[in-house]
Amino acid sequence: MINARLKALRAKMQEDGLDAIIFPSNDPHQSEYVADYWKIRAYFSGFTGSAGTLVVTQNEAALWSDSRYFLQVEQQCSESEVELHKQRIPHAPEHIRWICETLPEKSTIGIDYRLFSCGMIEFINSFAATKDITLKDIPTLIEEVWKDRPAQTNAPIKDHPIAYCGESREEKFGRVHQLLEENKADYLLVSGLDEIAWLFNIRSTDVDFTPLVTAYGLIGKDSSVLYSKESRFDQRLLADLKAAGVQLEDYSTIGNSLSKLSKGRRIITDQNALNYACFAAIEGEIVYQPSAIQSWKSIKNATEIENARDGMRKDGIALTRFFIWLENYLEENTITEYELGRRLEEFRKEQDLYTGQSFAAIVGYKANGAIIHYTAPEKGSATVKNEGVLLIDSGAQYQNATTDITRTIWLGGTPSDDLKKAYTLVLKGYIALETLRFPKGTIGMQLDSFARMHLWQHGMNYGHGTGHGIGLFSMVHEPGQGFANGATTSRGTLAHEENQFTTIEPGFYREGAFGIRTENIVVSKVVDTTDFGTFMGFEPITVCPIDTTLIDHELFTVQEVEWINAYHAKVYAALKNDLNAEEQKWLKEKCNPLVRS
Amino acid sequence: MINARLKALRAKMQEDGLDAIIFPSNDPHQSEYVADYWKIRAYFSGFTGSAGTLVVTQNEAALWSDSRYFLQVEQQCSESEVELHKQRIPHAPEHIRWICETLPEKSTIGIDYRLFSCGMIEFINSFAATKDITLKDIPTLIEEVWKDRPAQTNAPIKDHPIAYCGESREEKFGRVHQLLEENKADYLLVSGLDEIAWLFNIRSTDVDFTPLVTAYGLIGKDSSVLYSKESRFDQRLLADLKAAGVQLEDYSTIGNSLSKLSKGRRIITDQNALNYACFAAIEGEIVYQPSAIQSWKSIKNATEIENARDGMRKDGIALTRFFIWLENYLEENTITEYELGRRLEEFRKEQDLYTGQSFAAIVGYKANGAIIHYTAPEKGSATVKNEGVLLIDSGAQYQNATTDITRTIWLGGTPSDDLKKAYTLVLKGYIALETLRFPKGTIGMQLDSFARMHLWQHGMNYGHGTGHGIGLFSMVHEPGQGFANGATTSRGTLAHEENQFTTIEPGFYREGAFGIRTENIVVSKVVDTTDFGTFMGFEPITVCPIDTTLIDHELFTVQEVEWINAYHAKVYAALKNDLNAEEQKWLKEKCNPLVRS
Repeated sequence: MINARLKALRAKMQEDGLDAIIFPSNDPHQSEYVADYWKIRAYFSGFTGSAGTLVVTQNEAALWSDSRYFLQVEQQCSESEVELHKQRIPHAPEHIRWICETLPEKSTIGIDYRLFSCGMIEFINSFAATKDITLKDIPTLIEEVWKDRPAQTNAPIKDHPIAYCGESREEKFGRVHQLLEENKADYLLVSGLDEIAWLFNIRSTDVDFTPLVTAYGLIGKDSSVLYSKESRFDQRLLADLKAAGVQLEDYSTIGNSLSKLSKGRRIITDQNALNYACFAAIEGEIVYQPSAIQSWKSIKNATEIENARDGMRKDGIALTRFFIWLENYLEENTITEYELGRRLEEFRKEQDLYTGQSFAAIVGYKANGAIIHYTAPEKGSATVKNEGVLLIDSGAQYQNATTDITRTIWLGGTPSDDLKKAYTLVLKGYIALETLRFPKGTIGMQLDSFARMHLWQHGMNYGHGTGHGIGLFSMVHEPGQGFANGATTSRGTLAHEENQFTTIEPGFYREGAFGIRTENIVVSKVVDTTDFGTFMGFEPITVCPIDTTLIDHELFTVQEVEWINAYHAKVYAALKNDLNAEEQKWLKEKCNPLVRS
Repeated sequence: MINARLKALRAKMQEDGLDAIIFPSNDPHQSEYVADYWKIRAYFSGFTGSAGTLVVTQNEAALWSDSRYFLQVEQQCSESEVELHKQRIPHAPEHIRWICETLPEKSTIGIDYRLFSCGMIEFINSFAATKDITLKDIPTLIEEVWKDRPAQTNAPIKDHPIAYCGESREEKFGRVHQLLEENKADYLLVSGLDEIAWLFNIRSTDVDFTPLVTAYGLIGKDSSVLYSKESRFDQRLLADLKAAGVQLEDYSTIGNSLSKLSKGRRIITDQNALNYACFAAIEGEIVYQPSAIQSWKSIKNATEIENARDGMRKDGIALTRFFIWLENYLEENTITEYELGRRLEEFRKEQDLYTGQSFAAIVGYKANGAIIHYTAPEKGSATVKNEGVLLIDSGAQYQNATTDITRTIWLGGTPSDDLKKAYTLVLKGYIALETLRFPKGTIGMQLDSFARMHLWQHGMNYGHGTGHGIGLFSMVHEPGQGFANGATTSRGTLAHEENQFTTIEPGFYREGAFGIRTENIVVSKVVDTTDFGTFMGFEPITVCPIDTTLIDHELFTVQEVEWINAYHAKVYAALKNDLNAEEQKWLKEKCNPLVRS
């Protein structure tokens, strides 16, 4: 099937004089998860993972992806001609060098300008120029080859009320006006969908796992234009938007609008977010600037923090009930990983304001837990029994919160020393980072190592970053602060500010045996101001017990025992009122204070 | 006196049509410490610290320095018109913006091209261009104003024998030839004095505290030219150099030589080391590259490591005898900080191969210890008694090693809880970093935090980096690896490689009360190779007891007690054979194992 699609594509390429086409995984808004309409790379390669780039020439179909996806690519592309190129650095554009080395001089590469940032076009050109290779926009080619392409979504767009977000559109536009003034600029062009959702206080269901609206925003001193589709709004929201001074234009007209702005105008935009089609349409002066909205959005106000705590509590209730059910169920039955994921969803659905998963849950039993971005297939996933280790990384979208939590639990039998050691070192790493105090201004790269130090001491490590920012009824992975062991993303290079939400999620993966990860969301706070500056710290807001049966007490200090007892006391206090007597009893037991042996 | 010098300078400036002159602190080789001949900034400002830039206009004499030197500048410049401008970031060229804001359009700034790197000239021009400000070379102006300027040194240049360095000139030139081949280049231009010393295996006394030779090197495929002064060499070394293919030219002819290389030649050089006068002389193609010699030099061979250990042992003996003497002496006497520094030198002088201090020793009693780069003045330094805390940061040049060690000791009385807590947290930080295992590739910034984590936990911190590379009978501060909490120098951005020498020196400074620092030199090693990569660690090579009387046992863990006991066992074993019975007894007591209370 994939080969047939590639064949049709190549015929069209020949017709149009294209020697290669690059298919990235994003949409015109550089989104991580994309609407079905934009799943072009998946359509032509069969690979459905979230990160990967397909390059098609007349002779090759080459797919770049990183180590998280090697196994998945092998499985999903085994029957097609698509060949995996292993990326050394996730998200690095290693395919560009390959294309320019592979293609003859004076070749033409087709790309959809909407899917590439200005920075990326510049990068490609720096290689292409050496061989006189040309880039050509292909705005309609996909449609012509992909006959049954899904339609663009038409789902209703909803108000994200002030009770959840704590700041009105007018107030947010006010921040933009000040930004324009400070930069002597006329417009802010907003193209990130999470930024649009935050700025206009709107949500919909355009993108998998993420309640976003496909739109652009153009905020001027006297005008706030939202490029979307009027029919998707109800009358009340339309009136509210109008009252806030928002003018609606059709999504398709953004290019036209940009080209009409007079040449003297100064437009602020984010070089990494703006796609090349928009860029090419602008005649005015572009002021590139890291997105101010991303910074504003990353700092949560009191209303947002309160709502997030409510979401965490609901997640805790759902997970408590799920784990109780699982314990009982496995006494007499078995269940596949896939089914387990479905059941977990059912428990979350019982919670008020739930709208769906915040990402495809990872349910990895034993060796499958070692596959970092594992997705249990609907057919043929592993059968879970009442023994061994189970990793579940899952999250929810509630109308007032986004959650993301990983727990690794022991289902029965006797765990190996190796497993207990790994579990304990990972937990020690979590505690080390979560309880650290650090001077304001400390960046992600400087903090990340604390989650790894105990593993390092035993020659162990994990191949992913330690944490990411998270939205509020928005994207589960939000840019900005985080913890990473390199400077390749903002997660490693930005300082943590007060009232940001970040995950802490160290792990350990023994290939073919087991995977371990423990993850909470934390809120960053100022904890002290001394002669030596302002010191920050974290408070966990995820409330769900951490399995203590896998702790190796030889490796666990008195301070760590105290930490887990305090955390469990907090979990019990947060959840008990919403549980019945039997559930309370179960939770009480899971939250029982440890005694240092 | 300073004002008179400035007056003479300004008269000359007027004569030459100069509106401002910039005096940096370095010599034409970007050296940290410079020969007397190059102490131009000190001559015109009175400020003798190692980092600072003087800008003189007709109306102002403005000195930029960083927080390490604020007190010293205030003291040394109080009687002249020189005014301190406080730098926020050490070494940052904050004065450039100031000059360009202060001077009228079309002004002329005089600078000695030899004292500015190409990168710096480019930086200045980027500001100057906006106001049509011109730079003008002043190769002879200083000489004309500074009548009693010291002569350039004429000291003998000596062979650095293979028994100390472990690698012949020929082998080192071979590395350069390979570098030229790999880069299809014709020459390597070497201008860093530490690089010259390493590459040619030569040493002299041109620069304070550092056994370097003022010279340039130009290595081609078939020629190795050393620009120095023939009369400074003895016949034997001349013969050895000749045998290794080295041709001697006069130091002053480097510009002429560079200008004579034909245009088609490719010359590799380090943008940050090359001065603008050399740059301007080159007609060929310049290949900028971070210095390969710095990388080669930073990795010590087995002979160098063995020699360094010998140097550390001698330093340990000298310090042991000094501390024994001090203990006895203070029972009946007092002594100034300045005198104490002299006495310490006397003890080091007794050691074989000693040639001098590796930097101006810091002897800071009580509150003076809180002044990070304190130098006890010859007259009026504090009087040390047998009570309170004393910080001594000192180092030696031996013909086979360079040392750098800081110890903070308690002289008598009852230490405050605050002091004990600070001392213990600093020591815990030292131990945390020194015992850390980390994956190969981890950079300085990721490691630096481990030395601070215990201080941070109590809202404490210190305002300097945690460690630096160190040479071998060479510079005490060598570029390359290190530990820093930012990316402003290579210390924060480079990964540690096997067999590098680095200091670990966390501290804590309570203004007006006390200063604490504990510093050892460590050698980096590969400690483990696992499924998760290669893991590195450190081994301390400094051997000198660490004062245990200031340890707060409440804050010290079992593991830390074990660490200090093991370290002291190692110190005692390394030093005992060179001590007499009484000295052995003293050391044994200082190295007595602690028992965890």
